[in-house]
Amino acid sequence: MKIEIWSDIACPWCYIGKRRFESALASFEHRDDVEVHWRSYQLDPSLPEHFDGTETEYLSQMKGMSASQVGQMFTHVTGQAAGEGLNYDFDSIVVANSFTAHRFLHLAKEHGWMEKAKESLLSGHFEHGEDVGSVDYLVRIGTELGMAEEEVRTTLDSDRFADDVRADINEARTLGVTGVPFFVLDRKYGISGAQPVEVFSNALQQAWTESHPLVMANDDAVGQSCGPDGCSV
Amino acid sequence: MKIEIWSDIACPWCYIGKRRFESALASFEHRDDVEVHWRSYQLDPSLPEHFDGTETEYLSQMKGMSASQVGQMFTHVTGQAAGEGLNYDFDSIVVANSFTAHRFLHLAKEHGWMEKAKESLLSGHFEHGEDVGSVDYLVRIGTELGMAEEEVRTTLDSDRFADDVRADINEARTLGVTGVPFFVLDRKYGISGAQPVEVFSNALQQAWTESHPLVMANDDAVGQSCGPDGCSV
Repeated sequence: MKIEIWSDIACPWCYIGKRRFESALASFEHRDDVEVHWRSYQLDPSLPEHFDGTETEYLSQMKGMSASQVGQMFTHVTGQAAGEGLNYDFDSIVVANSFTAHRFLHLAKEHGWMEKAKESLLSGHFEHGEDVGSVDYLVRIGTELGMAEEEVRTTLDSDRFADDVRADINEARTLGVTGVPFFVLDRKYGISGAQPVEVFSNALQQAWTESHPLVMANDDAVGQSCGPDGCSV
Repeated sequence: MKIEIWSDIACPWCYIGKRRFESALASFEHRDDVEVHWRSYQLDPSLPEHFDGTETEYLSQMKGMSASQVGQMFTHVTGQAAGEGLNYDFDSIVVANSFTAHRFLHLAKEHGWMEKAKESLLSGHFEHGEDVGSVDYLVRIGTELGMAEEEVRTTLDSDRFADDVRADINEARTLGVTGVPFFVLDRKYGISGAQPVEVFSNALQQAWTESHPLVMANDDAVGQSCGPDGCSV
């Protein structure tokens, strides 16, 4: 079964949703037959490489929220994150455009490290005040994962993988995705948002059952059995 | 290999199917590697706790069968049951809703006695005129199996395991089950009804072979051999 997850980095529900999805997957009996593909999405492509201000200022200016609304939102989301074992620190967040980071994620994908890289960037952004728009930071994450510094730097200094990032975003649009995280199961079921674990669990079970219908081992459809209208003879 | 069997108690083909399946399993070479899970199903959830009438009256009233049709069905099924060593006595049957009995079966499962409890209830219902809707009867079966009377009575007086029974029934629906007994092998093969022993035997063999493919002991895929396009050199 193939699962695609569209998400951005500066997306607090994406990290929370990642944890909830992971919980559901860990307890899913066919987890070893599930392929997970992380796909790129940008919530705010218009952001400058580096925004000169705090996350609160960014949200106030760009989204028209008052500082008090932003504060309430942070409190709520931080609590939800804590429920998943995540230690969000909104005060330390560095606001940056995520395009280069998405190109970096596609490089990591070539090595089979997309998920690990995604996890590092989300944790860096939300828990450790890291600047995901900084090439030096991405190089550090890349080398920690085992990539050659040269390869990461050369890639990020070029526009390599820019088309892949744009293709992901276009594909999301084609599928009708308007917010992230967005989970697609076998290109058949969609789940929008950081839903409770049981929503993911039920969808996994449903999608699996539909793509793996039981093969009937008996010739006649019903056999000697009992149903709602009584028993066959 | 995992085998799940959905069945109800007031289901004459379920007991017969149980015997036929057991015969197939007893002669299956990998029987020690087969796990059997009994799952709950209710043919008639609308039945009152106790139906005031005979099995014949119940079937006539609820299923729209004439007394003579019911009689023919009893004769046929009793003959089939006798062929499996079961001594059905339709005249003595006590008609009752099976929900509480299914909760009892889930309690037995906790102790590892689901199969023994199922066997007792089926025999009690079809061979000995026992009332499977009676808490006192279920307590007796439980204590005979080795449970503490207190535990059985407390469980049945509460709604413990009700969710488990409902979950089993919902899962049957997801799998497309519309009648019982219904056998599911490794969530891949389905067998509907009390099929002949050889249908179970063949399905066991088939499912086993597929989940245990031959491990190739040679490195190259083909070796020096001949195929449709000729022979390797």
